[in-house]
Amino acid sequence: MKSYFTVIVFLYSCFWIPAQMLTAQSHDPEHHDRIIEFPDIPGLKTLKCDLHMHTVFSDGNVWPGIRVQEAIRDGLDVISITDHLEYQPHGADLPHPDRNRSYQLAVEAARNTDLIVLNGAEITRSMPPGHFNAIFLEDANALHQEDVFEVFREAKRQGAFVFWNHPHWTSQKPDGVAALTDMHVKLLEEDLFHGIEIYNGSTYSDEALDIALQHDLTLLGTSDVHGLIDWEYLPQEGGHRPVTLAFATEKSPNALKEAFVKKQTVIWFHNTLVGDEAFLTPLIEQSLVVTRQPGAMVETLLIENHSDADYILQNQSRFTFHNHAGVFVLKAHETTTVRVKTLINPDNFQLTFKVLNAFTSSDSHPVITLYL
Amino acid sequence: MKSYFTVIVFLYSCFWIPAQMLTAQSHDPEHHDRIIEFPDIPGLKTLKCDLHMHTVFSDGNVWPGIRVQEAIRDGLDVISITDHLEYQPHGADLPHPDRNRSYQLAVEAARNTDLIVLNGAEITRSMPPGHFNAIFLEDANALHQEDVFEVFREAKRQGAFVFWNHPHWTSQKPDGVAALTDMHVKLLEEDLFHGIEIYNGSTYSDEALDIALQHDLTLLGTSDVHGLIDWEYLPQEGGHRPVTLAFATEKSPNALKEAFVKKQTVIWFHNTLVGDEAFLTPLIEQSLVVTRQPGAMVETLLIENHSDADYILQNQSRFTFHNHAGVFVLKAHETTTVRVKTLINPDNFQLTFKVLNAFTSSDSHPVITLYL
Amino acid sequence: MKSYFTVIVFLYSCFWIPAQMLTAQSHDPEHHDRIIEFPDIPGLKTLKCDLHMHTVFSDGNVWPGIRVQEAIRDGLDVISITDHLEYQPHGADLPHPDRNRSYQLAVEAARNTDLIVLNGAEITRSMPPGHFNAIFLEDANALHQEDVFEVFREAKRQGAFVFWNHPHWTSQKPDGVAALTDMHVKLLEEDLFHGIEIYNGSTYSDEALDIALQHDLTLLGTSDVHGLIDWEYLPQEGGHRPVTLAFATEKSPNALKEAFVKKQTVIWFHNTLVGDEAFLTPLIEQSLVVTRQPGAMVETLLIENHSDADYILQNQSRFTFHNHAGVFVLKAHETTTVRVKTLINPDNFQLTFKVLNAFTSSDSHPVITLYL
Amino acid sequence: MKSYFTVIVFLYSCFWIPAQMLTAQSHDPEHHDRIIEFPDIPGLKTLKCDLHMHTVFSDGNVWPGIRVQEAIRDGLDVISITDHLEYQPHGADLPHPDRNRSYQLAVEAARNTDLIVLNGAEITRSMPPGHFNAIFLEDANALHQEDVFEVFREAKRQGAFVFWNHPHWTSQKPDGVAALTDMHVKLLEEDLFHGIEIYNGSTYSDEALDIALQHDLTLLGTSDVHGLIDWEYLPQEGGHRPVTLAFATEKSPNALKEAFVKKQTVIWFHNTLVGDEAFLTPLIEQSLVVTRQPGAMVETLLIENHSDADYILQNQSRFTFHNHAGVFVLKAHETTTVRVKTLINPDNFQLTFKVLNAFTSSDSHPVITLYL
Repeated sequence: MKSYFTVIVFLYSCFWIPAQMLTAQSHDPEHHDRIIEFPDIPGLKTLKCDLHMHTVFSDGNVWPGIRVQEAIRDGLDVISITDHLEYQPHGADLPHPDRNRSYQLAVEAARNTDLIVLNGAEITRSMPPGHFNAIFLEDANALHQEDVFEVFREAKRQGAFVFWNHPHWTSQKPDGVAALTDMHVKLLEEDLFHGIEIYNGSTYSDEALDIALQHDLTLLGTSDVHGLIDWEYLPQEGGHRPVTLAFATEKSPNALKEAFVKKQTVIWFHNTLVGDEAFLTPLIEQSLVVTRQPGAMVETLLIENHSDADYILQNQSRFTFHNHAGVFVLKAHETTTVRVKTLINPDNFQLTFKVLNAFTSSDSHPVITLYL
Repeated sequence: MKSYFTVIVFLYSCFWIPAQMLTAQSHDPEHHDRIIEFPDIPGLKTLKCDLHMHTVFSDGNVWPGIRVQEAIRDGLDVISITDHLEYQPHGADLPHPDRNRSYQLAVEAARNTDLIVLNGAEITRSMPPGHFNAIFLEDANALHQEDVFEVFREAKRQGAFVFWNHPHWTSQKPDGVAALTDMHVKLLEEDLFHGIEIYNGSTYSDEALDIALQHDLTLLGTSDVHGLIDWEYLPQEGGHRPVTLAFATEKSPNALKEAFVKKQTVIWFHNTLVGDEAFLTPLIEQSLVVTRQPGAMVETLLIENHSDADYILQNQSRFTFHNHAGVFVLKAHETTTVRVKTLINPDNFQLTFKVLNAFTSSDSHPVITLYL
Repeated sequence: MKSYFTVIVFLYSCFWIPAQMLTAQSHDPEHHDRIIEFPDIPGLKTLKCDLHMHTVFSDGNVWPGIRVQEAIRDGLDVISITDHLEYQPHGADLPHPDRNRSYQLAVEAARNTDLIVLNGAEITRSMPPGHFNAIFLEDANALHQEDVFEVFREAKRQGAFVFWNHPHWTSQKPDGVAALTDMHVKLLEEDLFHGIEIYNGSTYSDEALDIALQHDLTLLGTSDVHGLIDWEYLPQEGGHRPVTLAFATEKSPNALKEAFVKKQTVIWFHNTLVGDEAFLTPLIEQSLVVTRQPGAMVETLLIENHSDADYILQNQSRFTFHNHAGVFVLKAHETTTVRVKTLINPDNFQLTFKVLNAFTSSDSHPVITLYL
Repeated sequence: MKSYFTVIVFLYSCFWIPAQMLTAQSHDPEHHDRIIEFPDIPGLKTLKCDLHMHTVFSDGNVWPGIRVQEAIRDGLDVISITDHLEYQPHGADLPHPDRNRSYQLAVEAARNTDLIVLNGAEITRSMPPGHFNAIFLEDANALHQEDVFEVFREAKRQGAFVFWNHPHWTSQKPDGVAALTDMHVKLLEEDLFHGIEIYNGSTYSDEALDIALQHDLTLLGTSDVHGLIDWEYLPQEGGHRPVTLAFATEKSPNALKEAFVKKQTVIWFHNTLVGDEAFLTPLIEQSLVVTRQPGAMVETLLIENHSDADYILQNQSRFTFHNHAGVFVLKAHETTTVRVKTLINPDNFQLTFKVLNAFTSSDSHPVITLYL
């Protein structure tokens, strides 16, 4: 027996690449296109979060360490492992009684990296109320009980941040239209949940956004990944998982929780950003670096876009352009030349644009200003 | 002497690839991305035209045959060689007295191809009136005379179609703002020109579009190329030269002239289309093929975009989408999945969208309808 | 309790994409570059096999279903799940006593697909004898016993095909030079193993090839994957996992076992093929389709290469080429033009080439003939 | 008349991009892949030359300025415009009597750039002797006379370097087999030519290489371009024009002429290099930068290839590799990892490789050494 136990150490160090090595690799150009990139905004750090994901410890298909490596490859700051409390299809093979186990294994895999891993769990009920994630948990096991209100109250006792998952999921709401039931209203009255997913996996809900705005809920966007991120968000399609951008005073669990409680989030999916103007406008403005090449009466601006979003701009000012019509795109990580007919060539003029792929509600857009 | 004259025939056939061979090559996948592709519209053919270009016979840098090959590589239907009448910087080396010569050489190079070559010339004056192209000429030499009004009248006598080039050119209008002068008004009163470039080379003019709409002028967009098309509109940037899409009853010079006279054009530059709604709306609608995958209460549409334009759509109907917010893009030559929350699942419902990168005036957009 | 059990069925069908759906997807152009492609050879099917891989049931990091999906994405015909018998680092979480369990789950995941899944296990000992895979097992549990010779004898009793894994592994053979020990000689004398890996993961061994040739062993090449195939063999690098190409009378486990026993394999890794000339030569010749364009005294051949290998050819015939020197490359899935100076233009001439990236031993290459 | 002459200056400066601007552009990443890159060798500069090309001044299709811009885009150091002396198919339009004219226009276009433009001309006769280029001419007109021997003697009087063009051209030598005639022998006896093209356009000749080696002639490879370089050597195919790499003491016409006279050239076409071992071996060795990562008994080498050539290496040393068979490729501008089984881990060991896509004769290859 002894003979093959000595083998074990070699095997592990030889075959399985630990996450720390991956951190270094993630700076390689070949991985670059997976890194999600948005700038900080004045006074606040922009933290990229995916707060809904599964492992073999519920109905996912990978060991928790893979979720950590995927997150590092995507340049995330924060993940939460949120295995189903009540749904354990691999239970015959993994009869583990501890609902914190996948979190613990992820923490271990993330050691010596910058990734924050939050303890989380998915409360998995039929509708109403449907599924909810509780994150910043102390002990997930304590939430594994039958009475649903008691579960939410236990989460509150632990200081968890709780949000409603995929309220538009057609398996629970066949018309895909998110809507509050009486039970949801009661949960809200008791302050038992605080956020709502407007994007989950590959699905979006304008109605969930309406609910969030009406009931002052934090916006969330998550992958809810069960298989592999790479396969669901293909790199050759310029793909990325949906993320919640959280604006926090620093990169720490406490600052992050404060950001969620204060509703300081913007959701990034496909080529779309959704959030409060207070964060969305500076996020876009900070993405852009403008270099001015003064000309006699036609001024040339070079606008570098340092974000992953192709911004679709609609001109709102009285100036017209020598090389663009009134709607044009600032492509991600490219420099766009805009030639402005300044007419009287004012020393300080402003350009204002609606950003049409950014939303502050289901039918309104933020306006950005370029000060020159 | 005889010895090397026999060589001539071999040399020519061996070294210089005639345009006919190129036509065949232009179907190769490697050239495919240069071919400009837009569908016909009901009852009319969509002809891709570049009606402003130069050769060594004025201030261009290539033999006319190269212009023919460039056009074939770009999938154009029509070109006009429009060398400057009055400006001949290569005159010391090419002292050719015949202003039709570059046209004749282009016709010869286009023999046995489908490319239509129009005889044209650029009337090259300081402002006013600036530069104008006359196309469908019988004899360009007759336009080479001093009095500018006489030149325009001669063009009219020949049945030419005449348009104002780059009215916004900063070398002649330093503020870049296209504006009619008294002389232009007189020319218009005498019906001496009929169209106006709103796009030239790499420059655009909202004000030229305003003038066109106010004075009922045909819209034109041209490359005005002097060097090489490939170098000015790089393929790796997804580039293409600006073209005038003309909607004609058939592919013939006569039908084409009728299309221009009737103002049946749409201009295509960058990712932007500009034109009358009567042509713009069907052009976009014909680009799209929708396949319906009925679902219980959420219907999946696969929308194939068979054009070169990435259409930026803004939802105008009461339906919301299960995977998109209210603004999204149908990428060129790709299929986009749109999941519609049909609610009551009507058998025949309509989706309507504003197309934000298409313009019917400097600040209005066409609306398209998808009938399902 | 009942309430959330009804949820289960929906959850599973909604979130987790079964392997059958993936088979259809694998024809998409976007996945195409992962499909490993080589032609059949006269009379025999070319089956692409990876016979060494791990899951969470030993020290791997994915559920068995992921291995099935990876195989389908790579276009494999055959896999074997070969979790370590003696090495169970996840044992505290997965205390499963049945060493056939990961195989059973993979079989279930591969149902309704064309993928053959073989029951396998890795005998995991310190050197000597090191690690061995036994495939075509009836019951892996019976191999989980202490005496190593008894383990091999049990494998033989079950009719397994057994091969030596990574004999050059530096953790067990620090100089990386594969070498038989007395114990290996005894195992061979008792006919207890039949093949040897010359390629494992990302490592190659010329010395293992020498041993195979001297002792008449079947050649194997395997991924030995623990993490994700996509991450270890990046697509943007044109990467693919190492595979064993087995030449079998049909695609069935029995025909496959016969192919292994008869040593009918070729190993494909990087851009290199290694195997017996009897299979290597027809494999390369069948990859190539030659179209002849007769010319007066210089004949043009269009050589289509329908395989994944860039063949590096060295001219062995008396003919020289009008557009290549004596060494040139037939790129994978491209058509290469070769102009041959046939001199007397013989009706039937032959071209012969050494294929320099194919090996029949550590320093010899197969010769292919193009009959024209 | 005066009115439009003032226009001229604006027109020229606005529309036609001078070559100096292009030099700056050629550093853009998007143009990068057209720049031909090879290192200098110890004591000598590696100058990239294309010494055979045509313009509208004989049977070419572009103005000389385009040839200058093409050369800058390709990163060339030296070109020669070599219009046909006797063959003037555009003579009716360009009746210029001065055979130096295209050279003069190219010199003007190259002003303020680093490109060296040599005065050249193509002596254009039927076979024998066929076509020859004379470069470093003082006055091309003096070569325009009937007696072919007198033409060569005049070139010699002017100190020209003269080389035989495409001796394998099937229009003049139908079997494509380059061969000296009596006239060529006489020309050589009188020292009237000094070099020979082994590559022209898209054609190669092993027999021309044999002639060069037997008669001590300088090797040349040229594009002989008549149309556009971009169209004949497509970038998406990784294409580049054939060039003559000349090894000179400095970048000057005099040093260059000395290099040609001393036969200090290597020819680069497709992925093939041909030349004398004295230059070929250091060229390849200087392309490679090796970083050593010592390991216990298996040493890892990172080999950066700073040239445009994919070097096909064949191992010549007694060492074997832990990740490659005996033939592998160092891809252009990539870093290849080579793991060497050093066995006794010597402090200083050497690796030697034949480079199979480099030729010192039609069937021999240079050997490079990596000193570690």
